[in-house]
Amino acid sequence: MKVGLDIGGTKTDVVAVDDLGRITARMRVATGWGPDAVTATVIEAVRALAAQAGLTASAIRSVGIGIPGQVEPGTTRVVHAVNLGVDELDLAEAVGPALGVPVHVENDVKAAAVGAYALHGGSGSMGYLNLGTGIAAGIVSDGVLWRGARGTAGEVGHISVDPAGPLCRCGQRGCIEALGGGGSIAQRWGRDAALPVLDVFDAADAGVALAMELRSGLARAVAAAVRVLVLTADVDVVVLGGGVTALGDRLMGDVAGELAASAETSSFMRSLRLEERVELLPAGSPAAALGAALIGASRDPEEALAHG
Amino acid sequence: MKVGLDIGGTKTDVVAVDDLGRITARMRVATGWGPDAVTATVIEAVRALAAQAGLTASAIRSVGIGIPGQVEPGTTRVVHAVNLGVDELDLAEAVGPALGVPVHVENDVKAAAVGAYALHGGSGSMGYLNLGTGIAAGIVSDGVLWRGARGTAGEVGHISVDPAGPLCRCGQRGCIEALGGGGSIAQRWGRDAALPVLDVFDAADAGVALAMELRSGLARAVAAAVRVLVLTADVDVVVLGGGVTALGDRLMGDVAGELAASAETSSFMRSLRLEERVELLPAGSPAAALGAALIGASRDPEEALAHG
Repeated sequence: MKVGLDIGGTKTDVVAVDDLGRITARMRVATGWGPDAVTATVIEAVRALAAQAGLTASAIRSVGIGIPGQVEPGTTRVVHAVNLGVDELDLAEAVGPALGVPVHVENDVKAAAVGAYALHGGSGSMGYLNLGTGIAAGIVSDGVLWRGARGTAGEVGHISVDPAGPLCRCGQRGCIEALGGGGSIAQRWGRDAALPVLDVFDAADAGVALAMELRSGLARAVAAAVRVLVLTADVDVVVLGGGVTALGDRLMGDVAGELAASAETSSFMRSLRLEERVELLPAGSPAAALGAALIGASRDPEEALAHG
Repeated sequence: MKVGLDIGGTKTDVVAVDDLGRITARMRVATGWGPDAVTATVIEAVRALAAQAGLTASAIRSVGIGIPGQVEPGTTRVVHAVNLGVDELDLAEAVGPALGVPVHVENDVKAAAVGAYALHGGSGSMGYLNLGTGIAAGIVSDGVLWRGARGTAGEVGHISVDPAGPLCRCGQRGCIEALGGGGSIAQRWGRDAALPVLDVFDAADAGVALAMELRSGLARAVAAAVRVLVLTADVDVVVLGGGVTALGDRLMGDVAGELAASAETSSFMRSLRLEERVELLPAGSPAAALGAALIGASRDPEEALAHG
């Protein structure tokens, strides 16, 4: 049995995955703040899952962890996991002694890409586009996660698509993330709401001009990211996941409309049939935890999927 | 010995490559117009090279052809090679009987990417950005050419980076190719010149406003393509090739300036050190012919470089 975790800013998902890649148990625990509390969260989550699923310690052969931060290539060291209060942490070193099994650590979007790919059937190529506070992607082709040379593979959120667009937190203007990131939308909306992007969609439906502009920017951003993924990596399908996709069909309708508009003006765009190649990750899919489990189970993480 | 050809709109380069991947002979012939003449060009070029290099027919074990058109994935059929007057042609079928060896056909930019990668040392990952009439890229990582799912891998030229930018021949606005493609620049410049982009650079130096705007658009386009390649595929290095790179240091200076400007406003961009990761393909390098030879020599083109 392999275990996978997806450490989120407030909740951590943990799953047990059998040799056929099926999720046999899952649960959710609260995430602690800071390096020590995150370490404790991981250890407690694995123990709690084992207890719930009736797994003995020896039944767990590997643990994989997806975390919202940069993971230095080839290591288990996390840096800049700002939403977790972690500046730098070797997570495998921290949890390894208590868990007693090999631990792998991966950026959460890359882990989700591997999980989404497996959930999608595990063949061909896929761009997984995560729409959360920020925007980033993971690319999987023939079962292999594209890791790149220096850790920026899939960072499509910081490609500028409009020199007159909003200022991005990265310092550039008109980045895909500045247009469509949940954080940027909430900031520009400025209204206090538990779910700011949902609030924007509702206000746009009510005809509020700023909300309509922000909502249309989100669709433009997602469509631009889809085009970047198809015109650079030529992935077969782009799967949308992340918190903002809780908007479901309302978001998909906007994105399809934006893609249809560019297909109308461009025969080249039309030939790509992009609107047929964009899908939503099914709601509630623990893609990142599953992907982390698959990555963690492989001694060579590049071949996590090939060897199940 | 493997032979590679790069069929250009007016000239065809042909090289002989030994088992160590070294170019041992090369020559250039005129390219014919239309399917029959292109077929004859390939056969004549291989025969002429063999005669010049003293190669017997049996010494040639494979022929690879790079061609400016779409090559249907997994086939040797070329479609839409408009600059050659070829609408559709199975080139391997056409030249195979006369040459009597296995023939592979590849899009010329992808072939050039493989050749540029070999010339660069053959390790790590590279984006090869071709700046010609149009703009397109090829991505090679760990010796493997990224082919993608449907033939649009590396088509970064049709990513729009400015909704208020010039109209692209593809129907979109502000595509990288609309800003920086030699064809688009020549059309917007409108002055009759043998080398329109060179003419634009000279006129920009003389302070002509339109020329300055077009020249700056070229630098913006190249910088945008570099960012797309690094932020999507995370290639280690981007090598610029194609006709427009005959401008050499004048072009590189502009591109470096554009990358430096974005590094100044964005610490994220600064951290990528893009200006150190962009290089010019050495002038006169027969990258596409070499790449075609390497691809042609492999029964599995995906592993052309891995197995020499």
